[in-house]
Amino acid sequence: MLKLVGLSGSLRPGSHSTAALRAGLRIAAESGAATELLDLRELNLPVYLPDLALEDYPAEAQGAISRLVAAFRSADVMLWATPTYHGCMSGALKNAIDYMQLLARDSAPYLQGRAVGLVALATPAPLGNMADCVTELRAWLAPTRVTLTANDFSPEGTLTSESGNRRLTRVVTELLGFHRALR
Amino acid sequence: MLKLVGLSGSLRPGSHSTAALRAGLRIAAESGAATELLDLRELNLPVYLPDLALEDYPAEAQGAISRLVAAFRSADVMLWATPTYHGCMSGALKNAIDYMQLLARDSAPYLQGRAVGLVALATPAPLGNMADCVTELRAWLAPTRVTLTANDFSPEGTLTSESGNRRLTRVVTELLGFHRALR
Amino acid sequence: MLKLVGLSGSLRPGSHSTAALRAGLRIAAESGAATELLDLRELNLPVYLPDLALEDYPAEAQGAISRLVAAFRSADVMLWATPTYHGCMSGALKNAIDYMQLLARDSAPYLQGRAVGLVALATPAPLGNMADCVTELRAWLAPTRVTLTANDFSPEGTLTSESGNRRLTRVVTELLGFHRALR
Amino acid sequence: MLKLVGLSGSLRPGSHSTAALRAGLRIAAESGAATELLDLRELNLPVYLPDLALEDYPAEAQGAISRLVAAFRSADVMLWATPTYHGCMSGALKNAIDYMQLLARDSAPYLQGRAVGLVALATPAPLGNMADCVTELRAWLAPTRVTLTANDFSPEGTLTSESGNRRLTRVVTELLGFHRALR
Repeated sequence: MLKLVGLSGSLRPGSHSTAALRAGLRIAAESGAATELLDLRELNLPVYLPDLALEDYPAEAQGAISRLVAAFRSADVMLWATPTYHGCMSGALKNAIDYMQLLARDSAPYLQGRAVGLVALATPAPLGNMADCVTELRAWLAPTRVTLTANDFSPEGTLTSESGNRRLTRVVTELLGFHRALR
Repeated sequence: MLKLVGLSGSLRPGSHSTAALRAGLRIAAESGAATELLDLRELNLPVYLPDLALEDYPAEAQGAISRLVAAFRSADVMLWATPTYHGCMSGALKNAIDYMQLLARDSAPYLQGRAVGLVALATPAPLGNMADCVTELRAWLAPTRVTLTANDFSPEGTLTSESGNRRLTRVVTELLGFHRALR
Repeated sequence: MLKLVGLSGSLRPGSHSTAALRAGLRIAAESGAATELLDLRELNLPVYLPDLALEDYPAEAQGAISRLVAAFRSADVMLWATPTYHGCMSGALKNAIDYMQLLARDSAPYLQGRAVGLVALATPAPLGNMADCVTELRAWLAPTRVTLTANDFSPEGTLTSESGNRRLTRVVTELLGFHRALR
Repeated sequence: MLKLVGLSGSLRPGSHSTAALRAGLRIAAESGAATELLDLRELNLPVYLPDLALEDYPAEAQGAISRLVAAFRSADVMLWATPTYHGCMSGALKNAIDYMQLLARDSAPYLQGRAVGLVALATPAPLGNMADCVTELRAWLAPTRVTLTANDFSPEGTLTSESGNRRLTRVVTELLGFHRALR
């Protein structure tokens, strides 16, 4: 069964990035995909330390890192969402991506053979450097990139706009179609 | 029969960008693909004028534009190569890409459903904005992006380095595999 | 007397990019600067050919290229504006910038010691690769980058929005202040 | 007295990014500037939490955040250096930059009126999104961007190459000149 893993770059409670991912994962689940949402607020990762193996991190951080890495490995396709902080993806998201280095020696290193879709909140500015990460990690970049603003959400923080849902449906459809064709 | 169209951003005689494309097209042909190389020096396109239909361009330019657009439409997958001019792709390449607007009303607009691979000469700097164009044109971006330098070529301008050929083979293999899976 | 040169990436009659530049140049003129607007539609440049000296271009193109290069040389500060074509600056603008190579052997090569401000129409997407060009040309990038949409203009195509004028005033003020401090 | 603050994106002991900054700060000190190096390994920052004031962070993290923010505020000019992690600046560096939000209500918000120079290790790929951050923070981007590789350093990790030192000297000179002209 195909699995879509969502990774949100916001640690804000009630985050629109996370709400957008929830909507995207629901669309995927309705098409029969398994889904997992990586909530960085809950995981509470330390800042990535290069050259360390998992067991060299402080004991209290190993559980979170190991859950993150297991979710990366289990993903057939991914959806990344980020707020715009100073014109780029959040440090929290980039920090989580940096742990991909722990997949460098997998038989399919990093995200090789998989596909990633991108969502940015507020402005499209972070999409360019997220795309650089996707290709450096050897994944395919889905063509539809989604930019959402506060107007796409209800006051309670649920994605409600028709155009937002339509674009999310399009990128999720691309990801599922990619995996079904190439697996 | 699958068709790979190469588009080179250099107008220099003996261009390394064009030589890299020739090598890439040869690799594709050996795998059974049809190929076409768009040589912008020979096409001699005028600067793109927005809002003009093909028949509104000067008569002497219509043949070149119409050949360019026909090649874009015939492509199942594309390979773009560019020199680095001031940290970006050449104006010549971006100008050729701007004519994609003439495919805006096709049933699969622009490059929808197709995939594009990227090659940069001298530095990887142009790859980011080429990737932006690929996704804006609704195409999939191949994960392997190739950067080549003068050292990868013989004095006569042929791509001779093993590592350069290996990376080109990888991106061409990605493109052909993409098309064979998704058509 | 300080001189601001505007360079517009649109060849569309009634272009918003060009209208934004006209507004920026007026603001500079009111502060006592000399101004020049490079209208690429009128200049009608051929696609840049690397390795050619000015006198190697077709005779009918030499006047336009020579006017462009003279304006580049005369600029103390520049303002560049572009429409968004497929997520990047227009090919027309990048092509004009490519002629900066003819300033490579000046005593202050390219735009060394000068500053450039950026304006994008429709989306901020082109600003990143325009910024790459600015720094590759050895110029300082002004902090305020302006994005304008059709809503900022009257139906006749004049920049009328207060917020648009305020941001343009800010970038022009940065450019004039930069030059007055560093000359 | 002019102050240059260096910010390194690497948490690796013996980091080349940090060594490059040390060299840059020494050059500045020899020209009479005060300098401070922000060592993110030593600071051990938590991941940035939006909407939190300093006093809402865990007590053990407040000292580090408050030292970081004080250094940002004290900087007349800054030099940022980063390793390349998956084609972008490190998450550690972006995370540190995200704390600039705590300067949003300063009388000169963020880095307004100041200038930043950029250094990337291994490849120039991170420079584009670092530049986006610089301008979003309202600072001027210094024209010389420095890319260094392992070959520029001694086995002990000191910057030894002549070309590397020359480029660092150039960017530091730009920063000091900028401040002396505009203060």
